[in-house]
Amino acid sequence: MARKKHKKLPPAPDEYQGADIQYPNFSFDIYHRDDKSRARLGRLNTPHGTVETPNFIVCGTKASVKALNPMQVKEAGADFILANTYHLMIQPGADTVQKLGGLHKMMNWKGPMLTDSGGFQIYSMGDGTDADEIKGRNYNSKRGRSLTKITEEGAAFRSYKDGSKLFLSPESAMEIQRKLGPDFVVQLDECTAMHVSEQYTEDSMHMSHRWGDRSLEAFNKSHDGTQAIYGVVQGGVFQNLREQSAAFTATRPFFGTAIGGTFGGNFDQFFEIVSWCMPHIAQDRPVHLLGIGTFKDIFECVRLGIDTFDCVSPTRIARHGWALMKGAPGERLNLRNAKYAHDQDPIWPELGIPCSSQFSKGYIHHLFKANESLGGQLLAQHNIAVMAHLMREIRKAIKENTLDELQKEWVIE
Amino acid sequence: MARKKHKKLPPAPDEYQGADIQYPNFSFDIYHRDDKSRARLGRLNTPHGTVETPNFIVCGTKASVKALNPMQVKEAGADFILANTYHLMIQPGADTVQKLGGLHKMMNWKGPMLTDSGGFQIYSMGDGTDADEIKGRNYNSKRGRSLTKITEEGAAFRSYKDGSKLFLSPESAMEIQRKLGPDFVVQLDECTAMHVSEQYTEDSMHMSHRWGDRSLEAFNKSHDGTQAIYGVVQGGVFQNLREQSAAFTATRPFFGTAIGGTFGGNFDQFFEIVSWCMPHIAQDRPVHLLGIGTFKDIFECVRLGIDTFDCVSPTRIARHGWALMKGAPGERLNLRNAKYAHDQDPIWPELGIPCSSQFSKGYIHHLFKANESLGGQLLAQHNIAVMAHLMREIRKAIKENTLDELQKEWVIE
Repeated sequence: MARKKHKKLPPAPDEYQGADIQYPNFSFDIYHRDDKSRARLGRLNTPHGTVETPNFIVCGTKASVKALNPMQVKEAGADFILANTYHLMIQPGADTVQKLGGLHKMMNWKGPMLTDSGGFQIYSMGDGTDADEIKGRNYNSKRGRSLTKITEEGAAFRSYKDGSKLFLSPESAMEIQRKLGPDFVVQLDECTAMHVSEQYTEDSMHMSHRWGDRSLEAFNKSHDGTQAIYGVVQGGVFQNLREQSAAFTATRPFFGTAIGGTFGGNFDQFFEIVSWCMPHIAQDRPVHLLGIGTFKDIFECVRLGIDTFDCVSPTRIARHGWALMKGAPGERLNLRNAKYAHDQDPIWPELGIPCSSQFSKGYIHHLFKANESLGGQLLAQHNIAVMAHLMREIRKAIKENTLDELQKEWVIE
Repeated sequence: MARKKHKKLPPAPDEYQGADIQYPNFSFDIYHRDDKSRARLGRLNTPHGTVETPNFIVCGTKASVKALNPMQVKEAGADFILANTYHLMIQPGADTVQKLGGLHKMMNWKGPMLTDSGGFQIYSMGDGTDADEIKGRNYNSKRGRSLTKITEEGAAFRSYKDGSKLFLSPESAMEIQRKLGPDFVVQLDECTAMHVSEQYTEDSMHMSHRWGDRSLEAFNKSHDGTQAIYGVVQGGVFQNLREQSAAFTATRPFFGTAIGGTFGGNFDQFFEIVSWCMPHIAQDRPVHLLGIGTFKDIFECVRLGIDTFDCVSPTRIARHGWALMKGAPGERLNLRNAKYAHDQDPIWPELGIPCSSQFSKGYIHHLFKANESLGGQLLAQHNIAVMAHLMREIRKAIKENTLDELQKEWVIE
């Protein structure tokens, strides 16, 4: 797309001008803080139950966790599912989800849910290479670029399904997420890429802040206590902008804070960017880190005070034969590797779930060689069970002051 | 392939010349016979438990029931799984299955299992059009024809995986099935097509009979009580040959009888062919009908005295969005149809399984539109649950003399 300059509108005012928003059916209780870091233990109370934090949110992009039914997701120990506004507004459409009873009823998932705002997809549609840059993918030209225009009003784009014109504004993003019906919704934001200028990033950040205020106002109009809204911290790779954006969200009556946007080109830059944000955000609100999820990332960001994470990687790599594994090089095993062909041992006998304990690596290797989808199903459930196990161990370690020791068990440097 | 004439060898002798074979760990108890038909109720006792008959055997071709783990297969009410010798000898290979503990342990399936002999695949590889004729498929030229030669000795063919030369003889089919380790193995046979001459069919049938004797001898050499063997009735579309072949199997110490080969071009011819066989086979042995499985076929063949059925259709059509349904036109619903997009009702609330009762048709429609594999998983389990339910209802109806009434509920003519 043509990257247009943002209109030079005044930044959102320092103090919020809208009505205050209460969340009577939601709360976040921080009941333990680490001595040596910002790590904390909390309970996120929602209309669909309580989630212990730090925790990992499983991706169910199109209202389905890849390859698994919700009973299997639950069995794996997952507590929380994220779905994507952008995908669902196109297929099956927010009205259809509403007719089918909203996401929880439609998916038959009884735990908490969060939908993102569509902001990241706006970004990745418009700038494939930038999304790839964040996600470490090769650019796939077939994906196309269906974003047509971003203005102060919102983002215009075309449906990947039928080419029809669509428009996402802060107001429509709220309306759509109201119809989808998750517990948590996210304000609309523009996700900027690493390589864009500081000026562009700053202008965009201010627009995201104005969109935040519009999102809050729209959210509040139909607020009935069933949902709570997260603000998003942008500001790209620039310290002053990240700090400014983090502080901005704290002045607004968001229930929670999500940290989004580019996290730079490597772990150190990523860690630095999240570090800039954390002292400035609202300290008593739950903090979600969007789209992040290696074991190492999670350990380091838990220390920075992140409460929830989400990442498509556990279910995505499962489809390609990778099993997440504590202490393995690269944090995983490639079960397509011929060395597993005759391996009689299950992936992880002690994990307490049949996918990991009752099927040999040799059998799973065979399933991938034979293109049997059961292989992907077993590994998807295994990988989610590993993430749930990791988060349980992290919570226990925070309590027992053993986070450093635990990290050495999980992550080989 | 070049269809060579069979060698003019003498038919197998009328009386079996080999050693008798006992099956101390297997039995088949027929405890009720229908007044109005040959339908019967039985219990098939195996080292992996007892199966009530009539019953449906679920296909797990490559040692995996498509899209389902064995806990889901069990939850659906299935009792029995069939796997394919031909596929498994190529990937992962019989030795690998043996190293991984045999089919039961490898698949984590605790119920009875049967492997076919590879005969049907020899046929379908050599004569794609003929297999398509039986199975009602369009010929797919990409599948290729890897059969190189059938002789009295056996069938030579090339691996679809790496082009390597393979050979299946009655003896090697037994050796492979011994390594695979199912409860039930099947003799090697040649499956002849509908359009071949009576002379070819007769010569082939005699060869299959000789192969049956060789299979029995090879089976008995390594017989340790853990497996039982089925003979196969061939004879194509010719009454005299079908009767001859059925009677032949009864003279041999097979544990059970499988009816294979072509069943003609339509239901009436199929029904006639099975009818010819049934009075001549061993009356006290379990009878399996290979590869058959519409509701109508099953009702009619239960009346002819068939005890077990298998068919890939329930799991295959699931992948394409079809849900089996009692009393539906064509016995199924097409959930890809737009009319289901907003349908809030589950497929079959009373079926007693979450896949059929806790997900709306509208949601499953969405999953197929969005290419989410969960749709196929839910329908595969639903379809297996429907087959298990059908067989339970059929068994009850035989006992209560209400088979005609039940058929009217299931099958709309």
